[in-house]
Amino acid sequence: MQNFVFENPTKIIFGKGQIARLGKEAARFGKKALLVYGMGSILKNGIYNQVTDSLKKAGMDFVDFPGVKSNPVLSHVNRGIDTALKENVDVILAVGGGSVIDAAKAISAGVKASHDVWDFFTFSKPIIDALPVLTVVTVSASASEMNAGAVVTKEDGCQKYCIVSPFIQPKVSILDPTVLFSLSPEYSAYSAVDIITHMLEGYFNNTAAASPLQDRLVASLMKTVMESTEIIMEEPDNYDARANMMWSAILGFNGLTTAGMGKVIMPAHMIEHSLSAIYDIPHGAGLSIVLPAWMTWALEEKTGRLEKFARDIFHIKGRSSKQVARKGIACLKLWFESIGSPVSLKAADIPENDIEKIAENAFALSQVWFYEGYTKDVITRILMNAR
Amino acid sequence: MQNFVFENPTKIIFGKGQIARLGKEAARFGKKALLVYGMGSILKNGIYNQVTDSLKKAGMDFVDFPGVKSNPVLSHVNRGIDTALKENVDVILAVGGGSVIDAAKAISAGVKASHDVWDFFTFSKPIIDALPVLTVVTVSASASEMNAGAVVTKEDGCQKYCIVSPFIQPKVSILDPTVLFSLSPEYSAYSAVDIITHMLEGYFNNTAAASPLQDRLVASLMKTVMESTEIIMEEPDNYDARANMMWSAILGFNGLTTAGMGKVIMPAHMIEHSLSAIYDIPHGAGLSIVLPAWMTWALEEKTGRLEKFARDIFHIKGRSSKQVARKGIACLKLWFESIGSPVSLKAADIPENDIEKIAENAFALSQVWFYEGYTKDVITRILMNAR
Repeated sequence: MQNFVFENPTKIIFGKGQIARLGKEAARFGKKALLVYGMGSILKNGIYNQVTDSLKKAGMDFVDFPGVKSNPVLSHVNRGIDTALKENVDVILAVGGGSVIDAAKAISAGVKASHDVWDFFTFSKPIIDALPVLTVVTVSASASEMNAGAVVTKEDGCQKYCIVSPFIQPKVSILDPTVLFSLSPEYSAYSAVDIITHMLEGYFNNTAAASPLQDRLVASLMKTVMESTEIIMEEPDNYDARANMMWSAILGFNGLTTAGMGKVIMPAHMIEHSLSAIYDIPHGAGLSIVLPAWMTWALEEKTGRLEKFARDIFHIKGRSSKQVARKGIACLKLWFESIGSPVSLKAADIPENDIEKIAENAFALSQVWFYEGYTKDVITRILMNAR
Repeated sequence: MQNFVFENPTKIIFGKGQIARLGKEAARFGKKALLVYGMGSILKNGIYNQVTDSLKKAGMDFVDFPGVKSNPVLSHVNRGIDTALKENVDVILAVGGGSVIDAAKAISAGVKASHDVWDFFTFSKPIIDALPVLTVVTVSASASEMNAGAVVTKEDGCQKYCIVSPFIQPKVSILDPTVLFSLSPEYSAYSAVDIITHMLEGYFNNTAAASPLQDRLVASLMKTVMESTEIIMEEPDNYDARANMMWSAILGFNGLTTAGMGKVIMPAHMIEHSLSAIYDIPHGAGLSIVLPAWMTWALEEKTGRLEKFARDIFHIKGRSSKQVARKGIACLKLWFESIGSPVSLKAADIPENDIEKIAENAFALSQVWFYEGYTKDVITRILMNAR
């Protein structure tokens, strides 16, 4: 096990009827909030009213800032920063999924910066302060509600980049599994893909010599996610399945599964960022295309890990490590397909001829993230596996 | 899954050479520390010097407060409170195992109380403030380094009672697995028993209808603890095995495995408290006596859970639920014995004739903890299984 620091102070309030506690929690951090949300689904499903009722009861003032889209964009974040400054808010409240939470985090840091917020994303400036962020989660996948990261896309240049800082980590996150009952089968599937990919990237790309405990934690979470997703596809309002997904999403990317694993990189996420930056496809859909393609590319170098994955998760038997590993990749692809997430560029209407352009975009990010070895040629080869 | 709040802000600094970071971390919370430790082993093995060098480098002043014994006692805690007040310390630093950390926590709360600190343990007063506690862990089992609990024994009356409060939860805990290299086989075994029992109490005694994720997490941790303990018995200085134990100890009792499980009770701990309060035996040794005895007593009422435990952990096959469950209990006893922890009162030189006295002591605690159904008669029956 490698040396590590684990510190995750977010307070999680989990369960039915818990959104009502938001106001009291928010009031611990100030009197006026910027209420960040998406394209308005919370106005229809009653969550907006639950949130604002709770704020009013706690005597909190608030200003609406709707309009965050999936794959949130920099221009909108900048408008959020302007609004937050003009309205002099104390707190940023995110009510939504990963996109909304990430936009809220970027706004919270941007408010305290005297320079362009994008400088944080290119790592040319460090985040040294931010407004407190609280969240109410309506789509559960990114674990942004209990981690220090945020991803935003700069439209000009199609750059989908990230920031990581303890200052933007949510103080409080409220998760009510019943809000997921109305999540579409497509987005339920994309969520499952995202959760699984977060864990598998660390599982395959770390610098620890051995990791029996972390491997078991990943297997535990992955099995729970798969079994819960299968239930959800039949019964979208199965409380326990939704609850298990919601909590697994967090545990899969809040630092738990990678503590002690050394340096972890996320090449499938890196390449997927280009797909959703250029084509604006859902993040999970992009991941189910890229991850198996990456695994196939990694077959030679990481045969042992891929074999372990195949045996532990899909119970593949057999003597040949490589054959077992290959079957594991095939099983994962089949499972992604079975829940309705695409496993090829073609299935997402992305032309094969664009591979070079995508690789160029992803290569630029690999430079920002210092992912050694991910040359344009390597990325191209990975994407060729996704045709 | 039941509603829950999960909030665990302790900063964990984990790995070789990390004790050197203590001074800088402690200095964030004040200028003068009470340095709480045990019977002096840290003076011999060099940890005391590592700790004090780090404090000096950070410009921290400190006052020694040694002498915490296993099963820490109230009179000593009270002396610690007096010293902390007289010396006007800002921070309590615990360097030791669960006993030292628990004593430090009690001192930290007692310093801020205008009444007898024991009032917190009988729940007649709530903890509303405490000095910040930081820890350097030298025996890893209690998870006290990352939770809000502390156990202290009042000698007069042999009452081993506990407190739980976010105020006493450590701000920072430093864990260097190399400090465990010199831990004796006996105490390594007792640590394993304690870690396992923390998890199994929640596994068997909760109010959740089903808990697939938590069951898997418990199985993951338990397998890791068993496999690591077996390595440690052969190679006490195996870094990875010690590291896996150290981190598993924390994850097994920091709220992770019981999040969403509803009301969890710990009857084996309750009864063990009487054993170590009366006979001053190591906590882990007491638990390996009581837990299997409790499981045997629970066989009728909790056949399903005991069967699941037997199948998942010990891979017991068979059709009869009760037989499978019984074999699981037998396997756990055998495993405890195999690592050198006693599984009967006799093995710990506790006379059978004392069972009534022990039951009386434990029943008093069951009243304080509101453990319904644990009458003197029930506790006697459980203890009879441990003859």
